This record gives sequence, structure tokens and C-alpha cells, in this order.
Amino acid sequence: MTRRQRILGIVGTGLIGASVGLAARRAGWYVAGYDLRRATAQRARRRGALDAVVSRAFLYSRCDVIVLAVPLPATLAELAYLRVHPPQRANVILDVASVKVPVQRIGRSVAGFVGSHPLAGGTHGGPAAARADLFLGRPWAYVPTACAALNRKASRFLASLGAQPVPLDAATHDRILALTSHLPQVVAWLFAARLRGRDSPRRMTDLCGPVACELLRLTRSRTSMWEPILDANRHHIARELRGLARSMQDAARKLEARGTPAAR
Amino acid sequence: MTRRQRILGIVGTGLIGASVGLAARRAGWYVAGYDLRRATAQRARRRGALDAVVSRAFLYSRCDVIVLAVPLPATLAELAYLRVHPPQRANVILDVASVKVPVQRIGRSVAGFVGSHPLAGGTHGGPAAARADLFLGRPWAYVPTACAALNRKASRFLASLGAQPVPLDAATHDRILALTSHLPQVVAWLFAARLRGRDSPRRMTDLCGPVACELLRLTRSRTSMWEPILDANRHHIARELRGLARSMQDAARKLEARGTPAAR
Repeated sequence: MTRRQRILGIVGTGLIGASVGLAARRAGWYVAGYDLRRATAQRARRRGALDAVVSRAFLYSRCDVIVLAVPLPATLAELAYLRVHPPQRANVILDVASVKVPVQRIGRSVAGFVGSHPLAGGTHGGPAAARADLFLGRPWAYVPTACAALNRKASRFLASLGAQPVPLDAATHDRILALTSHLPQVVAWLFAARLRGRDSPRRMTDLCGPVACELLRLTRSRTSMWEPILDANRHHIARELRGLARSMQDAARKLEARGTPAAR
Repeated sequence: MTRRQRILGIVGTGLIGASVGLAARRAGWYVAGYDLRRATAQRARRRGALDAVVSRAFLYSRCDVIVLAVPLPATLAELAYLRVHPPQRANVILDVASVKVPVQRIGRSVAGFVGSHPLAGGTHGGPAAARADLFLGRPWAYVPTACAALNRKASRFLASLGAQPVPLDAATHDRILALTSHLPQVVAWLFAARLRGRDSPRRMTDLCGPVACELLRLTRSRTSMWEPILDANRHHIARELRGLARSMQDAARKLEARGTPAAR
């Protein structure tokens, strides 16, 4: 590493973490990565997403900026750790979890922490699916702190990855995402379940239109990653599910009313 | 045109018609196209989808195979015409409408007619969006007639466009498509309407995840084209809407039940 090069530390080198690494290396960062599964970090390095695979201790002691790119429960665990053991050098710490209220609950007492969430992803997880342009032009929500300088640094870092930083308070984020991300995911699972429940699911799948194909594609993303997110945001998601279900019942009624001469 | 080259006639040179033209020319056909809007046929020709823009009279008198690539009401109108004025030379006539029961009602008394439906499409209509590979590897359903030779010819023609011919009776087709194509389209519209109904729809749209983006993309396809399809298949679609709505209500209940200690 060159003398002046700043170090980015990435905790969790799956699809998101490795994509951050690829984009950050392009932007001139020296990228150090840690993953609970060392093989995953090594794959990310081979993919060009990391300059070095490091220990968690190195990462928290030597990096200038840290990105926690792990599932929600692990994000909360890392923040709980960082609250007690603040990193020695990092002045900006970001996460990528899809819900922000539970993250902020711990994160607000971690120095340098700015909760954030990239609106980007893919069907396949893991570093093999990582792309340097995954965030290019995509919104990346972040929860502004009371410190304007910290917010600026966080926002500038996200922009350097090609993303569009969108400031948003945690409650608004979770309310919006229930509709724009969590609801479609749940609908995709329910749609797939209905399809599988038919006489000849194979033929059904063969005859899917483009939207149905996209919904089925979604259901191939890992359920284990979604479980804690749905749990954390369940009240908003349940309200959205009920709202859309009501719209669908209304639409069904209107469609059938067309058949009666009076309604035409 | 070379002496032995067979002539394919396409009625309606929008996205589907022009894509059939592109694929068929690659497969060695001389392609003649007619569109009610002459400018659309001329655009299709400039795009390389047609060898010639012809009159409807030429098309029905000179072509060996005819593809009706027009919206449902126009398909029914052409079939009603062809029932009275059978084409002079064509021994295979195909359509592309997304519902088959109403098409078969007229089509079964048109000599050489095989109802069919390609499971392919795009957001943007018109010949400008046409692609030679639009049907490549995609299923193309067709309704077998009592004539095995005719079915073979139709199936071979579809395969020559790169599609996978799928034999299916009309009632089964419409029942399946209600779930795999019409339901997702209606859900996309209802989802978009809920999004637009919010305080800041612009910000909502900015924060859409990949599925939500795909659903919104779908709503940009022309409603006028869908209206008669939904009407024709309304009973199946209404049943699918109610079924998925019930699954969503159940999911909402289960999600919220997680919050009560007893349910955990």
C-alpha cells in the first residue's frame, strides 16, 4: 500500500461487501476485508474486491472507514461490540442493513456511525456475484447524525462508490422500504407458493410472463437473510400487505362486475 | 425475392410483429408486412423486419404463412374477416393474443388457423423495440387443432423463430396465464397506484428495490392493449387476485403474531 493511501475496512465480503470493495478500489482506496468465513474473504480477494484479507482486530484498529456488510443480526452484534470497543482510527462507520430503526437504536451510541442502506442487490449472494458498478446511479439511503461533518464524510464516501446518497430518518426509511422493497419480496414468495401449489407447477413456470419470471427470480434470494428484516419491520410490512390485498379484492370485484350488463 | 422463397405475411408490425419479421428473415423467409398505420410498417421495414410493406389484399392473397400480430379486438376482427374470405394461399395462420378462448371461438372455423401466444414481450411497443432474439428460448403456446399436419407446420414455424412451441388447449392456457401473466400485470398496476398515493411518490420511486422497479417498469406498458385481455379473462384473473390477496392477509396476520410473546 502506498504511504498516503487510506484504508477501507469491510466486515462481511459477500455480494454487497465485495461490490463495495470493487468500487472503492477503483476510487483509490486500499481495501482490507474480514469475513467470519475466511474462504469467503479469500474469494473476494481473488475477485479483486480486496487488497488484503485481514483479522477483525486489524480491521477495527487500522482502517479509516469501515463498512459493516453483514446480515441484520450480525450488524447489531458488531455495533454492540463497537459501542464498547470503539475502533482506534475509523472516523466513519457505515452499515448496509435493509431496516434502520433497530440499527439506529444501538448505532446512535457508536462514535462515527452512520446507518445506511444501498438500494441495490442481486439474486445471487457471495463475492462471485459482486460488481464494481452495483451501486452506480442507485440510491444509497443514510440516516443523518447530529454531526454535519460526519454526514458530509459519509455522503462523500457513498458518492465515491457511484451511489446517490439519500438522507432519510430511520423511521421514514423503514416505512418507505416496507412498501418499496419488503412488500414486493413477500408478494414474490406468496406468488411462487401459489404457483407451486398447482397441478403442474413445472408447466406453470414454463409459461411465466416477464413479471412472473422476475418474481420467481426474487424468491431465489436467501430467506435466512430476509427473516430478521421482516421481523424487525413487521408492523409496516403487515400494513402494506393488507393495503395491497384490499386493492386486489376491489380490483377482483370490479373485474367481475364488468360481466353484468348493468355495470357496462 | 428469389423464385422458391416462401412468403410470410405479418398483420400488425409493432413489437411482436416486427420481432417475428426479424427472426423469420434470419430463418430465410421473405417477409411482407401490413399495418393499419402505414408509417409503423415503414418503420418496421427500415428496422429490417420486413422485405416489403404490402396491402392487406396482397398479404391475404399471396402469403404462405400469416401471423396476426395485432391486439385482441383486431385479432377477432381479422379472424371474422378470414372466416368469410379465406386467404388464397396461406395454409398456416397464427395469432399472438394473450387469451385463447375468445380467439378459438372464431378461429376454429377459419381454415388453417392455429391460435398461439408467445411468452415474450417488452416494456416498449412499436417496431423500434423489436429484436430478432425476442422469442429465443421462450415458450410459445399454441392450441392444437384436429389436423396433425397443420399442428406440425405451426410448431415447426414457431421453432424456426427460436421459440419453444408448447401445445395447450385454450381453456388451460387462459387459466394458467391468469396466474402467470395477467395477475402480475394487475398487481403491478395496483402496487404503482399505492406508491403514487403516498406523500412523496417521487422519493418512493427513488427508493425502489429491484422487484419494485420491475413492477413499475411493467406499468409503463400500454393499458389499452391490456384492457380487452383482462376483460376476456376476467373470471380467472379475479379468482387469482382473490387467492393471492388471501395469502397476503394470512401473511400479515402471521407477521404480526410474531410480536406477541406467546407466538414466539
